[in-house]
Amino acid sequence: MIVIKIGGGEGINHRAVFENLAKLIASGTQAIVVHGANHEMKELCERLDLPQRMITSVSGYESRYTDVATMEAFTMAYCGKVNTTLTALARQCGVNAIGMSGVDGGLMSATRKKAIRAVEDGRKILIRDDYSGKIESVNRELLQMLTGAGYVPLISPPALSEEFEPVNVDGDRAAAEIAAAVGAEKLVILSNVPGLLRDVADENSLIPLIERGNVEAFEAFAKGRMRKKVMGAVEAIDMGVGEVVFADARIEAPIDAALDGKGTVIRP
Amino acid sequence: MIVIKIGGGEGINHRAVFENLAKLIASGTQAIVVHGANHEMKELCERLDLPQRMITSVSGYESRYTDVATMEAFTMAYCGKVNTTLTALARQCGVNAIGMSGVDGGLMSATRKKAIRAVEDGRKILIRDDYSGKIESVNRELLQMLTGAGYVPLISPPALSEEFEPVNVDGDRAAAEIAAAVGAEKLVILSNVPGLLRDVADENSLIPLIERGNVEAFEAFAKGRMRKKVMGAVEAIDMGVGEVVFADARIEAPIDAALDGKGTVIRP
Repeated sequence: MIVIKIGGGEGINHRAVFENLAKLIASGTQAIVVHGANHEMKELCERLDLPQRMITSVSGYESRYTDVATMEAFTMAYCGKVNTTLTALARQCGVNAIGMSGVDGGLMSATRKKAIRAVEDGRKILIRDDYSGKIESVNRELLQMLTGAGYVPLISPPALSEEFEPVNVDGDRAAAEIAAAVGAEKLVILSNVPGLLRDVADENSLIPLIERGNVEAFEAFAKGRMRKKVMGAVEAIDMGVGEVVFADARIEAPIDAALDGKGTVIRP
Repeated sequence: MIVIKIGGGEGINHRAVFENLAKLIASGTQAIVVHGANHEMKELCERLDLPQRMITSVSGYESRYTDVATMEAFTMAYCGKVNTTLTALARQCGVNAIGMSGVDGGLMSATRKKAIRAVEDGRKILIRDDYSGKIESVNRELLQMLTGAGYVPLISPPALSEEFEPVNVDGDRAAAEIAAAVGAEKLVILSNVPGLLRDVADENSLIPLIERGNVEAFEAFAKGRMRKKVMGAVEAIDMGVGEVVFADARIEAPIDAALDGKGTVIRP
């Protein structure tokens, strides 16, 4: 079993990802796909005149401020537009995809963060109207039933809180939780960069291998969105996933390349 | 097995529907839910400044003109906002709901109507850029696997065309196809009216019973959206569904009332 996370940024070659996946499945691989939709979410918020605000946690991680109106747009962009479009495309490419979110069938249960300590303009603030959460459990039986029957779950945030509210969860960390829940050998995190770079301005500065024990030495290179990817990778390895690869999804056969180690490989 | 269609108009008491459904399921009933989202679709189109246009077919049926931009909004309103919200609410009410659209897992396959003969301002026109379709098949095995495992599929249009395009299909007719595919004994079509009325302005003019053989005598009473509901009911009966009920979803325990025959009952 492999889990593929497809980033939500611009420039991803989705057709190449799904054509590659169809070939892998034909040769016997079982797979689960998790996707983001950050770029489409930004576009929709602009069309809806919805202000977008980022929260920086006291430990320095950035996340999207998700009030009720933003969560409504989130479900429309992630579950409505992107999940439906990607499921249709995957099926066209020969992947027996079944689109779903963490809400469906209790797939991803989360605890909502009811009060978030954040830093804004150098001041510490407490945010109480945010609908973000931390995944507590994954419905492994549902995923096993679907993959066992030949389907490829194509999964989008949000998750569902203990009070049955859809909550924003980070896609990379969701992919890590899912990979761990199903006992995946590999988690491939595809995005629009070649992997973790020493210098974000230089695509030739790729870090090819990180061992879990040394991860702290590389954390300083992870900027912005890449920080959550590193966090997800570490979580996945610590929960027993054999290998995580950050790889480029702008190329042909991106999954083959990732499984060949082209990207940043993170190992126990 | 019963199939419940929940209309997409204003005033539906969704909580009452799902609380009622949870009790029925606890007493051994298997169920599948299909929903509309017409009201939310209208609201989203207004927010997006997307012009809404209705098509009247040469046989007099109204449907939504669904070009590429409208289909994008359609997936956002139906699959994104409404399906996610209803799935979360159903789960809160104790229904083990799994939200999905006709695209997911090849649930509803359709033929896209590539040229629609319509009437506009009294003139016949041919519309070629519409993404609407007719359902050709339902993935019965997927529904049986999910219901057999204790899940309640909560299904939204669109369907997927033979060229892998999401296509708009009428929710009532989709519910009829699904009810027939799974061999449902009853199809309950809930909306914000008590059933088929002789006079749409008078809620006391309910037609309590229609036999399939006499349906033509009642078709003249069906106006607007109700015409498609009658068409769906006739299709369901002709495909072997035991009984169809049009009933009111603005009340408490709306499914019990419908199963008790409170509404318009259509029988073979």
